[in-house]
Amino acid sequence: MTGGARDQPRLTPKGERTRTRIVEAAARLIRERSVAGTTLEDVKAAAEVSGSQLYHYFPDKDTLVQAVIDHQARIIAGNQRQADLGTPEGLRTWRDTVIAQAESSNGKGGCPLGSLAGQLAETDPRARALIAAGFVQWSAAISDGLRRLQATGRIPAGIDADDYAITLLAALQGGLLLAQVQQDSRPLAIAVDTLLALITASSGHASGRWSPSGGRE
Amino acid sequence: MTGGARDQPRLTPKGERTRTRIVEAAARLIRERSVAGTTLEDVKAAAEVSGSQLYHYFPDKDTLVQAVIDHQARIIAGNQRQADLGTPEGLRTWRDTVIAQAESSNGKGGCPLGSLAGQLAETDPRARALIAAGFVQWSAAISDGLRRLQATGRIPAGIDADDYAITLLAALQGGLLLAQVQQDSRPLAIAVDTLLALITASSGHASGRWSPSGGRE
Repeated sequence: MTGGARDQPRLTPKGERTRTRIVEAAARLIRERSVAGTTLEDVKAAAEVSGSQLYHYFPDKDTLVQAVIDHQARIIAGNQRQADLGTPEGLRTWRDTVIAQAESSNGKGGCPLGSLAGQLAETDPRARALIAAGFVQWSAAISDGLRRLQATGRIPAGIDADDYAITLLAALQGGLLLAQVQQDSRPLAIAVDTLLALITASSGHASGRWSPSGGRE
Repeated sequence: MTGGARDQPRLTPKGERTRTRIVEAAARLIRERSVAGTTLEDVKAAAEVSGSQLYHYFPDKDTLVQAVIDHQARIIAGNQRQADLGTPEGLRTWRDTVIAQAESSNGKGGCPLGSLAGQLAETDPRARALIAAGFVQWSAAISDGLRRLQATGRIPAGIDADDYAITLLAALQGGLLLAQVQQDSRPLAIAVDTLLALITASSGHASGRWSPSGGRE
């Protein structure tokens, strides 16, 4: 996920710091006010940079928004690697952290990455592709943890860790979305806890996915 | 969910038809181009109404967007009632319909209700409340179906149908969001099928939710 950085000349350390300050200010404003509600003027004021500095790094709003997506995806990937879902303690800490974050804000802002999807997916193809790449990375990190839980017998072998990772990520995203609109972290906690209970309790006779044709009755 | 209708005088049948035409055109444009990308001028042209007609029904864009939310929530509630999740056949048909819709559009547009959350939750409190109310109705309809599946022994008794409904709705929303950004219905199908397999296979020792303190290992 090289994002906007790919198109840029190498920056001096000072230039890198200024660029980061702009991206962080933009990320904060976008979470508070949405992409449409954030202007380059707002970002300029919040980052305390001049117009020429801002335009030097980001010639237009789309480029800045793409850098924000890259920034959020990197933070999430870093957190997810640190979380280490490969141990029961790690899984529990991850669960607690995710829900505590939503609790502290009453769900406000939703997922830093997922909340951008509804705003940008249909109007900015490059933003859409960057968000999609962020989710693929995220899902792979979850899958890696679940696979190690399987290796130590903490969750049943014979299930597809990739499928469970996508399902957990989907429940997390949907839970964050419900928490955001209800301004209450409970739907998120319910979705994550219910799914983790099912995954860790599944005794292998849930052979992966529901069969579309036959169901399970 | 009375939405914008509450503030309006009673309409003649002709007035009601014109209003509906405007709302349907706005709903279509918003799905294609997002809320921010849709102007009242666009809606006027798409609905083939005059400016004075449009402003007669919707004095500003916020009022129109709220009517679109109300419209989408009503369609979903109607579909969910029709789906009848209370039988295994109904559950399967619902699953097939939801995934076929996403397949036919490669995930484009996401959920007609959920995709509005990221766009409006932080900037339009009334829109946020309307979306939240739509989700509460939706979740209640799913819960009602799951409760009837329990009554006939199709899924284990002793689980909390409300928790499962919220989890299924979250997985559906997250799956639709992943499908939207990846332009591929597979993440949705994986999330829904994996969760349905777990729910229908759970033999009661998944006693509801994962315990945050103790986990399940």
